[in-house]
Amino acid sequence: MKRRKFISAAGAGLVGASVAGCGNTTSESDSGPAIQTSPRIQWRLASSFSRSLDTIYGAADVLSEKLSELTDGRFTIRSYPGGELVPALEVLGSVQNGTVPIGHSASYYYTGRNPALAFDTCVPFGMNVRQYNAWVQHGGGMDILRSVFSDFNIINLPGGNTGVQMGGWFRREVNSLQDLRGIKMRIPGLGGNVMDRLGVSVQVIASGDIYPALERGVIDASEWVGPYDDEKLGLNKVARFYYYPGWWEPGPGLTFYVNREQWDKLPTTYQRALEVASAFASSDMQSKYDAKNPPALKRLLDSGTEVRRFTNDLLSAAEEQSMDIMQEYAANDQQYRTVFESHEQFKQLSNSWFGTAERAYAEFAFSTNERV
Amino acid sequence: MKRRKFISAAGAGLVGASVAGCGNTTSESDSGPAIQTSPRIQWRLASSFSRSLDTIYGAADVLSEKLSELTDGRFTIRSYPGGELVPALEVLGSVQNGTVPIGHSASYYYTGRNPALAFDTCVPFGMNVRQYNAWVQHGGGMDILRSVFSDFNIINLPGGNTGVQMGGWFRREVNSLQDLRGIKMRIPGLGGNVMDRLGVSVQVIASGDIYPALERGVIDASEWVGPYDDEKLGLNKVARFYYYPGWWEPGPGLTFYVNREQWDKLPTTYQRALEVASAFASSDMQSKYDAKNPPALKRLLDSGTEVRRFTNDLLSAAEEQSMDIMQEYAANDQQYRTVFESHEQFKQLSNSWFGTAERAYAEFAFSTNERV
Repeated sequence: MKRRKFISAAGAGLVGASVAGCGNTTSESDSGPAIQTSPRIQWRLASSFSRSLDTIYGAADVLSEKLSELTDGRFTIRSYPGGELVPALEVLGSVQNGTVPIGHSASYYYTGRNPALAFDTCVPFGMNVRQYNAWVQHGGGMDILRSVFSDFNIINLPGGNTGVQMGGWFRREVNSLQDLRGIKMRIPGLGGNVMDRLGVSVQVIASGDIYPALERGVIDASEWVGPYDDEKLGLNKVARFYYYPGWWEPGPGLTFYVNREQWDKLPTTYQRALEVASAFASSDMQSKYDAKNPPALKRLLDSGTEVRRFTNDLLSAAEEQSMDIMQEYAANDQQYRTVFESHEQFKQLSNSWFGTAERAYAEFAFSTNERV
Repeated sequence: MKRRKFISAAGAGLVGASVAGCGNTTSESDSGPAIQTSPRIQWRLASSFSRSLDTIYGAADVLSEKLSELTDGRFTIRSYPGGELVPALEVLGSVQNGTVPIGHSASYYYTGRNPALAFDTCVPFGMNVRQYNAWVQHGGGMDILRSVFSDFNIINLPGGNTGVQMGGWFRREVNSLQDLRGIKMRIPGLGGNVMDRLGVSVQVIASGDIYPALERGVIDASEWVGPYDDEKLGLNKVARFYYYPGWWEPGPGLTFYVNREQWDKLPTTYQRALEVASAFASSDMQSKYDAKNPPALKRLLDSGTEVRRFTNDLLSAAEEQSMDIMQEYAANDQQYRTVFESHEQFKQLSNSWFGTAERAYAEFAFSTNERV
């Protein structure tokens, strides 16, 4: 009893010495035993996503929950949807300049600042989630991406993945490369650049505007994510054909950004907790999508949606244009070239391995849902 | 300076009150702040695996490293290869009876004790690693598996995966179901039961004996794991044809077993740390395999190995026999039936979703390496 009181007094002293608040940490030593390294820290996280994208947005809450559990509630993060703390597409810059200590976003939103950031998310005909994780964690990818992010004063941590996305909703069938020409499709980013080269009239509109635009025929087609998220937008009610695969997003990785000064101020144990909690949140997102998408696809099929595979001539033409675009960037930018070459080299070797047991098992076990 | 001394004294008091040792925890309260809940705990982990299977065995070391980092070195685990603390195939029982507080094993080794344990690892024509993770984490699988393990006094935590394994090494080509009849193949477990029904003369021999048995023609074929592990056994030197997919191991999950009494004695923060560290070690194993297998496959192909896909007639016959065997178990065992039905239901729906974007992307992006 006496000892417990004594400990509480020491604890109170420690807590008093710590200042809780956005982005503030104490200057406690980080090399001593646990008893010396438990400052109270509260961070605010700026997400690029809305709460309606619950699987993606939710990863920040999973991160926060695990981090709190690991630190006995002493290091906590509160997440805010896109637009609440900072504009949704300014999360990178806001973490960079320290407006917020941590953010959750997709790095391909910021290719205007550095095209090489695309590889942190995904590139057309790039790697699937397992290949991406292997490249990042055990194929040299993390070192390369860290060097890209160091220019932004940011430590990058894994922030989830969706798996291969769907190609999107089309009001009419696209049976060939020729059928693509002239259609008006909502598709942002590099995928849009490729579609543009294939003759598509590329539109960039916000997610909330997709449904009315499709309904009124302002656009003929739109990509979004996959069955679970697409169903929530009601896209099956305004377009009948659901194409796959989304070759421009074969394994898009989300990322947590941490401001470097804030990171450096964290006790080592908190840094490790943040790393492990982000890895947990990251793989948890993929598992959630893999649990939510199957019943959503079934509901869509039951509602009359017809799934269609993009033809090989379309995929081959798109791959050729994708490689052309990336090689153009690589020719003009040393850093881009370094990332591109590491990514390509890993992917080529990986595609050969994934072409054996994984591919053959998929071909035998998975049904295509094509109605022929 | 004065405050630091004061804290150190409190810390020393805490440490003195804790007894380090195998499976011993202190009786410190687990509900207070971090300062009250940092007993020193050292556990010994019994693995079923040898150090030569470095990717699988290594997951215990990754678990240990992360756990130590998360607890500032206060909760540590030292791992021992199969046979050092307890016999390799008695890890489950040794954790159950408290001989060791934690183990790392594959639950299908223990189907003699309860056939339903197979679903904790994998069953023939079952789920791949993403489907398995989704079922366990967000498809009700964990609750069901926990109820199976509760009969063994064990808390189960994720312990890694290999991905779809290879079908193994054959001295002669197997171009049809007919060609399988009469061949002597080393293949344990349910896969062996199925092969037996397909007319194979099933052999169960230890990994170290595979090479000489194949070399001397005592067996005609043997399965093991995949390129990285198989290459280390030198199997390419004694068999030319490398078949895929290993339909009996489409996504085998390894598992950490924790003795329930030892688990209950852990402070809550340490329980959470163990959960998150095991999740980290688990997905890390898959990423390591996905980074190591591609260059190993390339080396095997360069050495003259010829990869071959099992024919569809063989796969279909094997799937039929697999389902027959599992339905026989289900008819005789209520618990088995419960697990089987949850597993099957999740798998069917999942196979439909994975048959769209994931399968189509794999078909387009991954090369088969077949030399035709």
